[in-house]
Amino acid sequence: MRLWVEVGTRMTPTRKSRLSHVAADGSVRMVDVGAKDRTLRSAIAEAIVRMKPAARRALKQGLLKKGDALAAAQIAGIVAAKRTAELIPLAHPLALTHVDVRCALEGANSVRITCTAACTGPTGVEMEALVGAAVAALALYDMCKALDRGITIESLRLLEKRGGKSGVYRRRGA
Amino acid sequence: MRLWVEVGTRMTPTRKSRLSHVAADGSVRMVDVGAKDRTLRSAIAEAIVRMKPAARRALKQGLLKKGDALAAAQIAGIVAAKRTAELIPLAHPLALTHVDVRCALEGANSVRITCTAACTGPTGVEMEALVGAAVAALALYDMCKALDRGITIESLRLLEKRGGKSGVYRRRGA
Amino acid sequence: MRLWVEVGTRMTPTRKSRLSHVAADGSVRMVDVGAKDRTLRSAIAEAIVRMKPAARRALKQGLLKKGDALAAAQIAGIVAAKRTAELIPLAHPLALTHVDVRCALEGANSVRITCTAACTGPTGVEMEALVGAAVAALALYDMCKALDRGITIESLRLLEKRGGKSGVYRRRGA
Amino acid sequence: MRLWVEVGTRMTPTRKSRLSHVAADGSVRMVDVGAKDRTLRSAIAEAIVRMKPAARRALKQGLLKKGDALAAAQIAGIVAAKRTAELIPLAHPLALTHVDVRCALEGANSVRITCTAACTGPTGVEMEALVGAAVAALALYDMCKALDRGITIESLRLLEKRGGKSGVYRRRGA
Amino acid sequence: MRLWVEVGTRMTPTRKSRLSHVAADGSVRMVDVGAKDRTLRSAIAEAIVRMKPAARRALKQGLLKKGDALAAAQIAGIVAAKRTAELIPLAHPLALTHVDVRCALEGANSVRITCTAACTGPTGVEMEALVGAAVAALALYDMCKALDRGITIESLRLLEKRGGKSGVYRRRGA
Amino acid sequence: MRLWVEVGTRMTPTRKSRLSHVAADGSVRMVDVGAKDRTLRSAIAEAIVRMKPAARRALKQGLLKKGDALAAAQIAGIVAAKRTAELIPLAHPLALTHVDVRCALEGANSVRITCTAACTGPTGVEMEALVGAAVAALALYDMCKALDRGITIESLRLLEKRGGKSGVYRRRGA
Repeated sequence: MRLWVEVGTRMTPTRKSRLSHVAADGSVRMVDVGAKDRTLRSAIAEAIVRMKPAARRALKQGLLKKGDALAAAQIAGIVAAKRTAELIPLAHPLALTHVDVRCALEGANSVRITCTAACTGPTGVEMEALVGAAVAALALYDMCKALDRGITIESLRLLEKRGGKSGVYRRRGA
Repeated sequence: MRLWVEVGTRMTPTRKSRLSHVAADGSVRMVDVGAKDRTLRSAIAEAIVRMKPAARRALKQGLLKKGDALAAAQIAGIVAAKRTAELIPLAHPLALTHVDVRCALEGANSVRITCTAACTGPTGVEMEALVGAAVAALALYDMCKALDRGITIESLRLLEKRGGKSGVYRRRGA
Repeated sequence: MRLWVEVGTRMTPTRKSRLSHVAADGSVRMVDVGAKDRTLRSAIAEAIVRMKPAARRALKQGLLKKGDALAAAQIAGIVAAKRTAELIPLAHPLALTHVDVRCALEGANSVRITCTAACTGPTGVEMEALVGAAVAALALYDMCKALDRGITIESLRLLEKRGGKSGVYRRRGA
Repeated sequence: MRLWVEVGTRMTPTRKSRLSHVAADGSVRMVDVGAKDRTLRSAIAEAIVRMKPAARRALKQGLLKKGDALAAAQIAGIVAAKRTAELIPLAHPLALTHVDVRCALEGANSVRITCTAACTGPTGVEMEALVGAAVAALALYDMCKALDRGITIESLRLLEKRGGKSGVYRRRGA
Repeated sequence: MRLWVEVGTRMTPTRKSRLSHVAADGSVRMVDVGAKDRTLRSAIAEAIVRMKPAARRALKQGLLKKGDALAAAQIAGIVAAKRTAELIPLAHPLALTHVDVRCALEGANSVRITCTAACTGPTGVEMEALVGAAVAALALYDMCKALDRGITIESLRLLEKRGGKSGVYRRRGA
Repeated sequence: MRLWVEVGTRMTPTRKSRLSHVAADGSVRMVDVGAKDRTLRSAIAEAIVRMKPAARRALKQGLLKKGDALAAAQIAGIVAAKRTAELIPLAHPLALTHVDVRCALEGANSVRITCTAACTGPTGVEMEALVGAAVAALALYDMCKALDRGITIESLRLLEKRGGKSGVYRRRGA
């Protein structure tokens, strides 16, 4: 692609500062992980869902009765994590050996969602953990939206990542 | 489900404070929208992706050269919005007539993603807009993660919703 | 397809005794429903999952504690019903307006799963109801299989169908 | 999830009688198979589709002419088996190395569907075999339903399972 | 997207010569079809699969015996046509009311695949017809590739398109 | 399947001339690759998209401005290649370690799309490369079709295949 583009005076960024998914000619690419070792890799991501106390209260009542609302969010996250490579264009298909989504009510107005993913493979699973947390949070939004359209998903982010050449990553404070 | 559960003394919450996706017996359900009018409905959602200035800089360089990194995020969001009913367990399948995802670089360290969705149907499209914004943001994370694992998706939320009986919703300040 | 096949002496079956999805030349086809009225259509299907009392007991305990096992089956059924046209080759894509999956413990060793589906469209939703009941039953099998590999799904069948030219169908005894 | 629930006097079931997919706190989980050996695993499941002799006759006529009706069911089953992890919430994604679906006309009014699945992986493939048999049976229902709405799928069940720590399972009489 | 890009002296192409999926700022978009009439629309596409006579002969023998190889291709095409909006990023989701895939052996070394698609909706179905023809051709390739890796899919193209404001399109010679 | 079919005088073709996906009884099957070695495998496929000079010119203008139209095609191809086993009924699910789609403008009226796929697995990835090239070409058609309905995808074919027992295949002239 783009053999015809004049690249003349464009400065080539050093490898370190380049986006790994952008090829030398500027087009996107899926990184070739064929030569990377297959090792155990895991990641943990979280999302905070903030809502009005009234919505949180209804969720908790639902919870104490049946737990089905949180179970629906949990399952949505697990299923979505398995489908990460369909959703994220440049993510590699990975056979996850573990996905776990947990929802914890916090304070008066929020729910903390944590997603853990793991596999033995040639590349990390942080996208799987993030997708799982994000979709669980969105499923929760869906079930509470009639009570509060203003629910906000905050701080969707990676907490921890293990395995592979880059070793352990742990967010400060996590 | 759960006909055998004793519901005796449980207080029945008033309709207003109940989760619309939780049936009287506490189990989840997909709301029946068969009797609702098919009208034009639209929604706008946004996500803020906050990253280190170095990652944002690399993204911008990629952008000015080709724009493919942002294009990949944009397309990921559009495709995901169309698949909302597969991801969100209780969402209704809807034939979207419009999806638009926009990415704007903001300040030194963030990207604002906006997703607009529309359809003529019996129920709102806020989930479609939110899923589109979320997956575009996650695709962006994927492409920048080698430069900054700490990228955070903040404020994934609904900005506006139109159509249907409940009329126009607009987030304060949006 | 198969214009080259000699059809010479083959008897053409009368319309009544022909499979609706088999064309005159014997190849399969998706029935053209473009000229059919868009009316409200619904269907109810059920599946009976029979298991050892020990497995049923564990399921009930899980139930009384949290209900998450049945909730997982219920959600699996709802999501699968929405994806019927992907799974059943000649089924038409339909925008379901309602799906409901219920699980009821029965006697000492079985669970009755009922799936209701509805839409306003040009063709019936019996496949959607059957797919929802089947996948909920299979998800239940998955969650109980460590306790009883011999669990059997019995009597996966249509109970009722409404709407369209053929009127109401109701299984005798249903 | 559910740290706030009082678990006080609840009896902890022994490991043997617990559902493998239910965590100690009662929520569902995907079992972590990361530490299990990757060995060859296979499973065989079957489904019996019972229909009126008129429908079976039409199916057989279709068969003798072209076989396309049974071929459609066979392919639906093969494709669905490959998508098991999308349909069954807590199933692990597995790279199947083999799927085979067979349909045999039996007696005057039934079709026996058998699905064999195999892979080299950390967990069994019984769900893949069951999903393949179930969806093939449902596709057959779809193609015959105009002649007989009362078609029943009976005895969807596992016949055999090989590989892994638990060794060979074979249903009595299979 | 790209509000920050200087567009200064760039000539704005006239509407006629612009790509319908490219917004004024150069980014891609899904055309908004919300205001377009819902009318009956249909399209026919074809693909020619050219292979060595030996492969074609094997296919024909398979055909005369059972027809399953062509049936598999036919079903692959039908199912793929229904999933067009998942595959083609800017295609609108449409509830197809009809899909038909036909395969005809031609001459000594080719197979002509024709796919017809139809729906009542706000936009045309040419992509659905093309996707159906392409995937049927690829499925045929898959089944014949052991005999001839050099099989070529030629002339994948639209033959006819009806409905909507632009009226009837018919390829010259079709 | 088909135990009842008389096979009497039918000549059994030699192994060499048989379709690998057709079982001895004529029904289709997914080849069992469980015993094959897991080795590095790669494949390259191409598609030529031929269009009117006016459409090609608009594409090039879009390109020089932003590149988003070609980027959309590229991403559509990458995502589709990862989903090959869902689209091609008898293809094995494979965890691709690499997919790359490139689009090059050629002459005045065509675009050459090349797709490279690779994985370490028990079977080849030629279908993945072909599906990636085909869907990228179809996405390009979609984006240019308003300017030229007569765009033709020509010569969708395999250029090269490496790995596995059959060694290197390279199309003459490629």
